Amino acid sequence: MADSNALEGLTQALRRLPGVGAKSAARMAFHLLQHDTQGALQIARALEHAVHSVKHCTLCNTLTELDICSTCANPERDRSKLCVVETPADQAALERTLAYRGLYFVLMGKLSPLDGIGPHDIGLQKLFDRVVPRGARGEPVTADAREVQEVILATNFTGEGEATAHVISQALRSRSVQVTRLARGVPVGSELEYVDLGTIAHALVDRR
Amino acid sequence: MADSNALEGLTQALRRLPGVGAKSAARMAFHLLQHDTQGALQIARALEHAVHSVKHCTLCNTLTELDICSTCANPERDRSKLCVVETPADQAALERTLAYRGLYFVLMGKLSPLDGIGPHDIGLQKLFDRVVPRGARGEPVTADAREVQEVILATNFTGEGEATAHVISQALRSRSVQVTRLARGVPVGSELEYVDLGTIAHALVDRR
Repeated sequence: MADSNALEGLTQALRRLPGVGAKSAARMAFHLLQHDTQGALQIARALEHAVHSVKHCTLCNTLTELDICSTCANPERDRSKLCVVETPADQAALERTLAYRGLYFVLMGKLSPLDGIGPHDIGLQKLFDRVVPRGARGEPVTADAREVQEVILATNFTGEGEATAHVISQALRSRSVQVTRLARGVPVGSELEYVDLGTIAHALVDRR
Repeated sequence: MADSNALEGLTQALRRLPGVGAKSAARMAFHLLQHDTQGALQIARALEHAVHSVKHCTLCNTLTELDICSTCANPERDRSKLCVVETPADQAALERTLAYRGLYFVLMGKLSPLDGIGPHDIGLQKLFDRVVPRGARGEPVTADAREVQEVILATNFTGEGEATAHVISQALRSRSVQVTRLARGVPVGSELEYVDLGTIAHALVDRR
């Protein structure tokens, strides 16, 4: 575009951001170099720092700088409930409701066979070990000795999210753990006339 | 969102990118740290390198690593024509047409009084000095001695772009330089029924 290898390299690098194509990347590069070089250096430092300091929580698998994230370490959370979500953003949405005081497990993805993402690519084994830990001699602990009594599946209500929830619920039922799923139904504030039929059908079946 | 100052800092930093809000920034941060740490470090290095090596071409004001950019230094370009554009992206669009072999001047912005951007904030004085340079004793050179014979205004056809073009044409007419503007008219491939009335009116007035 302009004759600058550094500018070209920056534009190419910015295209690695999700949702950023060639035109957006060029606009970002020009904007930063023309109007916000301080911002450019701030982003560079934040990236370096985050890459070198952020890792996964050993309990819930979310991104954190600590060994155990502050949610898992909070003694006021209900440790008998474990809510399974796809991403930290989903976890944040649930937290904002102020309606849940249990713990979380963050899959950091979802099953997506078409993209080649199977059970080993997301944190499924880590989740099973978290729910049914093994005793000193390697045998699964009994139901009474488990910390987690209920697993709440809060993966997205998309095809992949439903499939992920299904796989988890099948695997955990054989381990005799209570597994629940977020309720499907009519969104708050919506008029039936404009709600899709699948949602209304689910709301009818799950009526209470 | 997640309890990580580094992650929070990265999300805040990414919000400085144009067109990126809180949700996009969080999604970018999670994606980079979860799936593409190499990409994150590549972006960081590209930003640092670009900030420290990219500057403005002394002739055309565009972003470049050299004192004079490759377009201005190209001996095969017609040095009597100077095309004024707002951004390097606009320049690139004109270059892709292969219909122009003159030189460019990149304003790096447009007049926008509502945003507090006046003639001194974009490269207007640098443009005037480029078109009508001063001689050894500080007096403007005569029209015959000038390199630039025609200034083609190719700012955008928006309110601000038109205003910028108007200001430049007024300033340069008093310096007796030929000033032209890109033609307004019906876009190639469009049907009159769906073209806005202002464009059709301009196409009627500018018919040839």
